[in-house]
Amino acid sequence: MIIDILIEKIKEKGNPIVVGLDPRLSYVPEYITEKYFMKYGVTKKAAAKSLYKFNKKIIDSIYDIVPAVKPQIAMYERYGVEGIKVYESTVEYAKMRGLVVIGDIKRSDIASTAEAYSDAHLGCTDIRGEDFPGFDHDFITLNPYLGSDSITPFLKDCKIYEKGVFVLAKTSNPNSGELQDLICDGRPLYEHVAGLIEKWGSDMIGKYGYSCVGAVVGATHKEQAARLREIMPHTFFLVPGYGAQGGTAEDLAVCFRDGIGAVVNSSRGIIAAHMKDKYNVCFNDEKDFAMAARQACLDMKNDLRRCI
Amino acid sequence: MIIDILIEKIKEKGNPIVVGLDPRLSYVPEYITEKYFMKYGVTKKAAAKSLYKFNKKIIDSIYDIVPAVKPQIAMYERYGVEGIKVYESTVEYAKMRGLVVIGDIKRSDIASTAEAYSDAHLGCTDIRGEDFPGFDHDFITLNPYLGSDSITPFLKDCKIYEKGVFVLAKTSNPNSGELQDLICDGRPLYEHVAGLIEKWGSDMIGKYGYSCVGAVVGATHKEQAARLREIMPHTFFLVPGYGAQGGTAEDLAVCFRDGIGAVVNSSRGIIAAHMKDKYNVCFNDEKDFAMAARQACLDMKNDLRRCI
Repeated sequence: MIIDILIEKIKEKGNPIVVGLDPRLSYVPEYITEKYFMKYGVTKKAAAKSLYKFNKKIIDSIYDIVPAVKPQIAMYERYGVEGIKVYESTVEYAKMRGLVVIGDIKRSDIASTAEAYSDAHLGCTDIRGEDFPGFDHDFITLNPYLGSDSITPFLKDCKIYEKGVFVLAKTSNPNSGELQDLICDGRPLYEHVAGLIEKWGSDMIGKYGYSCVGAVVGATHKEQAARLREIMPHTFFLVPGYGAQGGTAEDLAVCFRDGIGAVVNSSRGIIAAHMKDKYNVCFNDEKDFAMAARQACLDMKNDLRRCI
Repeated sequence: MIIDILIEKIKEKGNPIVVGLDPRLSYVPEYITEKYFMKYGVTKKAAAKSLYKFNKKIIDSIYDIVPAVKPQIAMYERYGVEGIKVYESTVEYAKMRGLVVIGDIKRSDIASTAEAYSDAHLGCTDIRGEDFPGFDHDFITLNPYLGSDSITPFLKDCKIYEKGVFVLAKTSNPNSGELQDLICDGRPLYEHVAGLIEKWGSDMIGKYGYSCVGAVVGATHKEQAARLREIMPHTFFLVPGYGAQGGTAEDLAVCFRDGIGAVVNSSRGIIAAHMKDKYNVCFNDEKDFAMAARQACLDMKNDLRRCI
């Protein structure tokens, strides 16, 4: 099961970090962008190619010390078809480097439409009886607002294709509580969602006791995360919000049990490390950006180790 | 404002139908698919090109009698990059034919990511100080689970680029009530969402009293729709669930006031009409599929007129 593979990669690297591949053109050094703008002009293609080159160098620099990456598809959709092309290439390149890939796509729709999304992002699309695989994700993120029948098509493909999902429970953004914290029948909404997530994963539990249906639980809400860990004993957590969004290692330690139980995402904190004074001092050539990312991963690993 | 343009097109056509462009390869007549499979082999490209040809013929056949179309991006994402290309072309072609285009994308994410989605689907992406427009939607659909700060970036672009959004309130699928109907502080969750939608649109109200921030309200829940119409007086509704999903004209009439207030979606019921016995009898040549779709639009228009 894919959840076992993720857990084994975390153990092997001694590191529960997932690197968020949410690149922005402003993060990409000029020596890269110049090359593509010279070749393709100021176009979406040149921008997209720059992001891909940037991603490749980041992946090359961190693949041996982290278990997983999480490309955020919005950052690629913004460059249209050219962006989607390099999204696909990024997923493929990360897989080739042995990383677990979590496609951060947060899709959701009614069942007949969810089937199409699942074909695209977990399974295969049938064309005249031949199966054509979609993006080569190991996991994707999903939004639960439409309820069980909107999730079922993805669960079916998880079983067929040995994939997994992370469903939003409690997100890391400032207004996450507006709906998610509303008290429904005596419990906050996110706890109702948590109950569903446990149920959805109940027949896909791997050898470490965690299921292939994970939950997104923000590092910015310590008490809620502790409660969610309690009521979702078989659910692996994808934890956003560390670093730039304000979550600390102390906050998110509650997501773990015996050193496992979660992957912790950092995006800007790692891939844009070279733009921070802390790393800029040591990595001061623009070609050093990927080494800065590696150092930021190692620093984050040490920071998390203090608490987990 | 885009909501005024939509309402004027509905008045002009005397018809509140939005045609869901959710094509499947199984809907496309062989004379179309054969041509592309001959040319490109059994590939995603051939499949995607077939869908585009199908869409074009449907659009040509209905553009003068309906105000809007709603392409469902999942049906295109399933064919990867080639699918996204024809999604883009479909949007452009529908715009060129004078139709309002509602991109059914149901995106949602934290603010910094929502900005990227908004660049992609409503606004523009900046590349070296130049603005590159994204998909040429007039409206898109959004999921509210993350709260206000996940919606704000889209509202900002609605104002700048004269666009609109439809936010999921009460969806049409069988399990929609699982979370949406939970009673929170004395009211179902979808009413809390409804309150937010009214607020989000409060400074974008057009000359007919409706705002550019609409709500998705399923035709399959008559009582809830009636209540939502009451508590969202300035909110235009996008109503899915008519026909194939079980919603009737009687059910959804409550979404209207004085003949306006909503657009009613039908997808399969129109674009796959040629596969139903009812239409197959009259439109029995495979090239007649678009004429069957036109007849299904006219029949639906008459059905809705009985009740609205």
